[in-house]
Amino acid sequence: MVSPPARYLSRLHGVREKMRAASLDALVISHPPNICYLTGFSGSAGLILLTETRCLLIADFRYAAAARALVESDQQLEDAIAVVVPPGSYDETLLDLLKESGACRIGVEAAWMPVNRFNRLSASLAASTSPTGSSSSATLVPTERIVEKGRLIKDQDEVATLREAARRLAAVSVEAPRLAREGRTELEVAGDIDVALRRHGFERPAFETIVASGPNSARPHARPGGRVLEPGDWVLLDFGGVYDGYCVDLSRTVQLGRPDLEFRRIFDAVAEAQRAAIAAVRPGVAAGAVDAAAREVLGRRGLADAFGHGTGHGLGLEVHEEPRIGRPLEGIEDILLAPGMVFTVEPGAYLEGIGGVRIEDDVLVTDMGCEVLTAAGRS
Amino acid sequence: MVSPPARYLSRLHGVREKMRAASLDALVISHPPNICYLTGFSGSAGLILLTETRCLLIADFRYAAAARALVESDQQLEDAIAVVVPPGSYDETLLDLLKESGACRIGVEAAWMPVNRFNRLSASLAASTSPTGSSSSATLVPTERIVEKGRLIKDQDEVATLREAARRLAAVSVEAPRLAREGRTELEVAGDIDVALRRHGFERPAFETIVASGPNSARPHARPGGRVLEPGDWVLLDFGGVYDGYCVDLSRTVQLGRPDLEFRRIFDAVAEAQRAAIAAVRPGVAAGAVDAAAREVLGRRGLADAFGHGTGHGLGLEVHEEPRIGRPLEGIEDILLAPGMVFTVEPGAYLEGIGGVRIEDDVLVTDMGCEVLTAAGRS
Repeated sequence: MVSPPARYLSRLHGVREKMRAASLDALVISHPPNICYLTGFSGSAGLILLTETRCLLIADFRYAAAARALVESDQQLEDAIAVVVPPGSYDETLLDLLKESGACRIGVEAAWMPVNRFNRLSASLAASTSPTGSSSSATLVPTERIVEKGRLIKDQDEVATLREAARRLAAVSVEAPRLAREGRTELEVAGDIDVALRRHGFERPAFETIVASGPNSARPHARPGGRVLEPGDWVLLDFGGVYDGYCVDLSRTVQLGRPDLEFRRIFDAVAEAQRAAIAAVRPGVAAGAVDAAAREVLGRRGLADAFGHGTGHGLGLEVHEEPRIGRPLEGIEDILLAPGMVFTVEPGAYLEGIGGVRIEDDVLVTDMGCEVLTAAGRS
Repeated sequence: MVSPPARYLSRLHGVREKMRAASLDALVISHPPNICYLTGFSGSAGLILLTETRCLLIADFRYAAAARALVESDQQLEDAIAVVVPPGSYDETLLDLLKESGACRIGVEAAWMPVNRFNRLSASLAASTSPTGSSSSATLVPTERIVEKGRLIKDQDEVATLREAARRLAAVSVEAPRLAREGRTELEVAGDIDVALRRHGFERPAFETIVASGPNSARPHARPGGRVLEPGDWVLLDFGGVYDGYCVDLSRTVQLGRPDLEFRRIFDAVAEAQRAAIAAVRPGVAAGAVDAAAREVLGRRGLADAFGHGTGHGLGLEVHEEPRIGRPLEGIEDILLAPGMVFTVEPGAYLEGIGGVRIEDDVLVTDMGCEVLTAAGRS
C-alpha cells in the first residue's frame, strides 16, 4: 500500500525525534519493511540514510526506476527524500555519504544488521577518520526498535487495509475446509488454498501454507507433503495472504467425516482458550496477560504441556512483527496493548501420535477492547 | 531433500576440520539453510551447537517432534546428533549449554547473526565467566563461510535433485509464455505460473514470481501488479521453484504479437551475452570472468549502461547463495569456478520507458565446462 505522502513525512518526523533523544547524528535503516514503512519503497534490498536534514533512499539499479517514480509522484516527497543509486556496492556508497554528512554518532538497526557488516563498516569508518586524530571520529551505535515502535500502532489507512485483508481471508477460511478432502494430498490442498488466496485478491501467500493431516497435525509447523488425507484425519490449515502490502494470518482445524469425542474435546478446549484470550484484549493490558488467559484454560483442561508455542504475533508489513503475545521474556519489558495494535490470537493443543488443533484469528485493539477482524470466517 | 545419513556425518566432519583450523572450541550455527545442510532439519528457527564431540540440534516445541523423528530415523545420526528442546528462549538454553561445554573460543556465523544478539550473548558470557578471573573466559568469535564453503560444491545427490528440478522448471518455461496473454493482468499471469509450478511437482515458488509487462519490464525486479497486458508489450517472466528443498530459477522475455525490430535488437544482444557467459564457464575460471563475458557483448552492442545487475547467483538450499557471478568486489577475493557449482546465468538489458529483456538459465560446472540444466526449455 502506498500511504498518503503526509504519512511518510510524519513517520520520518517521528524517527528524527527518536534520533534526537538518542543523540544520533544519523540513522542507517537496512530492514526492508522499515524502509517501506518510511518511504513506500518495497524492494528486497535498499538502505535509508537519515539525518536531521536529509533522507537518502539508496536503491540499486534493479529498483532505481521504481524508487524514483515513487518519490517523484509527489512534490512534498520529492522535497523530503532523495534517491541515490550506488555505482558499486551499497556499503561503499553508504560510507561515502556518511563521510560527506560529517555525522559522528551513526545509529544502525542492531536487530537486523549482521555482525560482519557492522564490523566492516566500523573498521572502514575508523580507517577513514583516524588520521585526523580528531575526537569527533564517526562510530556506529547499535539501536533497537526505533522504526518498529512506530509500526506497532497502525494508522487509519493501515487499519482499513488490514480490515479489508482480514475480511478477504475470512472468506477464504470458509472455503478452505471444503478443499481438504479425503484422497487428496496435503500439497494439493495447499496449492488449492493458494489459488483461493489469489482469487480473493491477495498478491501472494504471506508464508508457506500449512496443511498438516493426521499425525502431522501434532506438529505445529509441519510442511505440507505427499500424505494422502484419510477419513477421520484431523487436518490443520494455516494460511495467510499479503493484501496491498499488509499481512493477515488464520488457522482452522477440522476432522474429516464426523468429529469424534477426542477431537471435540481438544477442539472445545482450544476454542475456549481462544475466546478467553480474545476477551482479555484491551488497552493497558500486558501482552503476556492475553497469553496467560489462553494458557489458563488449556491448563485447566489438562493440556498445559500440549500448548508449547506463544499465543500470537503482530501483523502488518511483516507476518511476524510486534507485539509478541507470549510468556514474558526475562529481562525484556512486556508490551502494554494499545489501540491500533493488530495481532493474531492462536492457541493450540498438540498430542504426539494423535493430532493437533489450532484456531487462529486476527484482532485489532480498540479503545474499549478489540475487534475480531476475521470474524466473518468464524463458525 | 533428506540426504543419506553418511552425507550429514561427512559434512559435520568437514565443519569440525575448519573449526580446528580456526582454533574454535565450539561453533553456533544459526542460519536455517546451514542447519538444514548439516542435519536435514528444515524448521524456520533452530540452532546447532557443534563441538569436537557433540552436535546439539536445538529446536523449539513447534519443530521438536520433526527434529526427533529425523535424528531417530538412523542409528548413525542418533549417535552423532542430539535434539534439545529449549524450555525458555533459544539463547537461554544456548548459554546454559555453552557453559556446560566449557568452550572458550565460540564461533558464530557473522553473516547471519544480528549485532544485538551477538552483543547480548557476549555480555551474558562475560557476566557468567568473569567472577573467576580466569583467563579462559568464553568469547564469541565472528566467523564467515564455514558451512557455506561446503555448500558451494554440490554432491551427487544434490546435483541429481537440482538436475530434476531444472528439468521440471524448463517444462514450466515452455508453458509460461503462453500464459502471458493480452487482456490479462500481471498478477493473473503470475498466479497461473505459480499453479503451473505446483503442477510440475514444485513444493512452492522459490520467490515471488515476476511478471513485468510493457514499461514495467524495464524494472528488473518489478512486482506483478494490476496492469493489463497489451498487444506489443514486452513481457518479462522470472520464476523459480523449490523441489525437494532445492531452488531453481529461470527467466524468459517475450513480445506479445509479432516481435518488432527494437525488441529483436535487444533480445538478440541479451541472448548473445548469455551464450558468451555460458561459454566462459569452466573450472578454474573466476566468477568475474563469466560476468565480464556477458558485459563485453552488451557493451559492444551499446547496452553497457542498460545492464546494471550481476550476471548470476548460486542455487541450492537458497535461491540466492554462493557463488556470486558479478563484477569482483573491492577487498573480496573472487571465487574460482569448480565442478559441482550450480548457478544462474541471467544477463539483461533495460531501457527506461521502453522495456527490458532478461534471459536466465541454470548451469552446473562440470570437469570440462558446464551443463545447462534448464536446456530443455531453451528455444
